[in-house]
Amino acid sequence: MNQVIELIKADVKKEKPAVESLGFGKHFTDYMFVMDYNDEDGWHHPRITPYAPLVLEPSAMVLHYGQAVFEGLKAYRAKDGRVLLFRPEKNVARLNMSCARLSIPQIDEDVVLDAIKQLVELEKDWIPNEEGTSLYIRPFIIATESSLGVHPAHEYKLMIILSPVGSYYGDQLKPVRIYVEDEYVRAVPGGVGFTKTAGNYAASLKAQEKAEQMGYDQVLWLDGVERKYIEEVGSMNIFFKINGEVVTPKLNGSILGGVTRDSVIQLLQYWNVPVREVRISIDEIYEAYQKGQLEEVFGTGTAAVISPVGELGWKDIIMELPNAEDPDTIAKRLYDALTGIQLGKTEDPLNWTLEIK
Amino acid sequence: MNQVIELIKADVKKEKPAVESLGFGKHFTDYMFVMDYNDEDGWHHPRITPYAPLVLEPSAMVLHYGQAVFEGLKAYRAKDGRVLLFRPEKNVARLNMSCARLSIPQIDEDVVLDAIKQLVELEKDWIPNEEGTSLYIRPFIIATESSLGVHPAHEYKLMIILSPVGSYYGDQLKPVRIYVEDEYVRAVPGGVGFTKTAGNYAASLKAQEKAEQMGYDQVLWLDGVERKYIEEVGSMNIFFKINGEVVTPKLNGSILGGVTRDSVIQLLQYWNVPVREVRISIDEIYEAYQKGQLEEVFGTGTAAVISPVGELGWKDIIMELPNAEDPDTIAKRLYDALTGIQLGKTEDPLNWTLEIK
Repeated sequence: MNQVIELIKADVKKEKPAVESLGFGKHFTDYMFVMDYNDEDGWHHPRITPYAPLVLEPSAMVLHYGQAVFEGLKAYRAKDGRVLLFRPEKNVARLNMSCARLSIPQIDEDVVLDAIKQLVELEKDWIPNEEGTSLYIRPFIIATESSLGVHPAHEYKLMIILSPVGSYYGDQLKPVRIYVEDEYVRAVPGGVGFTKTAGNYAASLKAQEKAEQMGYDQVLWLDGVERKYIEEVGSMNIFFKINGEVVTPKLNGSILGGVTRDSVIQLLQYWNVPVREVRISIDEIYEAYQKGQLEEVFGTGTAAVISPVGELGWKDIIMELPNAEDPDTIAKRLYDALTGIQLGKTEDPLNWTLEIK
Repeated sequence: MNQVIELIKADVKKEKPAVESLGFGKHFTDYMFVMDYNDEDGWHHPRITPYAPLVLEPSAMVLHYGQAVFEGLKAYRAKDGRVLLFRPEKNVARLNMSCARLSIPQIDEDVVLDAIKQLVELEKDWIPNEEGTSLYIRPFIIATESSLGVHPAHEYKLMIILSPVGSYYGDQLKPVRIYVEDEYVRAVPGGVGFTKTAGNYAASLKAQEKAEQMGYDQVLWLDGVERKYIEEVGSMNIFFKINGEVVTPKLNGSILGGVTRDSVIQLLQYWNVPVREVRISIDEIYEAYQKGQLEEVFGTGTAAVISPVGELGWKDIIMELPNAEDPDTIAKRLYDALTGIQLGKTEDPLNWTLEIK
């Protein structure tokens, strides 16, 4: 049973930013969605209101104990003007999975999907048209209760904000340079690595800074127990093409199950390209590299879709992947297929897009 | 070089709560301390202002990526009316250590110490008098920059809020029941377990809920790699008295180095009671229990000072510690000594208190 979403109109509309100044998550639209939770009423009062600052008690629990989860997905403007979402139900389901681990009350997924659709419909003029641009959708839930006792909060806010974005890494298929982190750890089985919770990102910043100081773009995380199995990249999942077969680390409780990751696996299967979810160590990757069998490395994520990796640094070893810019790689084929589907340019064989009208 | 702290006066003062309704972190005083950071000015504009809600952008980074650290310490009212802090320089140093791991700019520790002193001096009428009560001091730093890109923020706020508190667990020396968690993991070497960052607490809630459902008060965490070495309790460090010797897990990168933990070790050394920081497994604890050598278990922390453990549940095993309520335990002696020093009732042989005047 869907709740009716109240609309509170904005008196003034903002000027839309020029496409070249978009960046990522810097500009926000005129409206946002808000819904509240308390123990008595459950999730209640869904509403679309003018985008405005939040008023929080200094003792709001999210600021102290980090009970916060989020999602990220995009609305695309098709060439024919249609507005498309890509598998939004996956993001909403994952939001609830994150909530479960972080002791946040479950939400009605239909209400959140409905909120995303109504908000994007209302703000569709904010979806930029240019290649590689989109309207980024950020649903998030924070604990708002005023209390310094460590316990699951009794009050929360779910909000959805929208940001017109350029491509996350600039030119999308420019190969990225990745550093294999062997000092810091992102997550461990039994922890919260499989969720999109705020603390995972805070914990990752130091390694990211270190990688950037060494001239790399992002970090490749190893597992926290044996410190040798591949997990994921800073903001992406990771795939390797080794001797004709595509492999990616299997979900193990410390890896985020990306929607793009899942889509890549399904597309490869649909194309009859061999793909497997495996437990794979950095030593095995290096061995394949030395044998000349490491044919491609690429990251997958909502922000960048597909990012070919041009260089993998591990301790003193540098693995170069010179074909990262080739036009006939699996990475390029996946990028074209996914963006084709997302932008309504090509057929959608697995029925992934949802048109907003 | 200390910066001058501006004072913005409150027009209205709140009514102080009755001592029996204090609880923990539910009531806040009339003033708070605030200081801002941006890349251009560094940490600037230290000020004491009326306690008031915070205004944050919905895109404030703390709400999405959890860049947040905090501290907790207490101001005590001595019997002779003096106002005492307990080793506040340790908390301020730990705050900076947390900042370093979370990519938050370092603060001038003298400024924060000075802020604590001035704020507590101004609010000293809020310090309750009754046994077991105190004024809890919560310094915290949050990333306030509006941005959805994952990177260390360029803007922060440091705030200090004060809350008159009763005792955290109710009657302080009532033994607590602890459950040894073997499914969820709190932290792992290479991660952020040694810091007081928000995400550590969010990640702990699920296990705490599970323990409470089983009738326990708190969780005892095992290490995240081998899942057998003792780490810490939900909001405390842990000590065991085995065959006359006191042991506690040594700091290993995933355990929080508590100020009370350090004080307990120093006091025991001062008393010539054998004490060691060790790597100790739950199997070793159980073996000692079976041999009748597990004489005491107790937690240490700012909130509860010393909490004797009356029962330790591990899988199907229940280890009962019937002497937890005895008057002649090490736990009781430590509790009396620490609270005696904190309340100015006894000598302060290690020079731990700082009088605010």
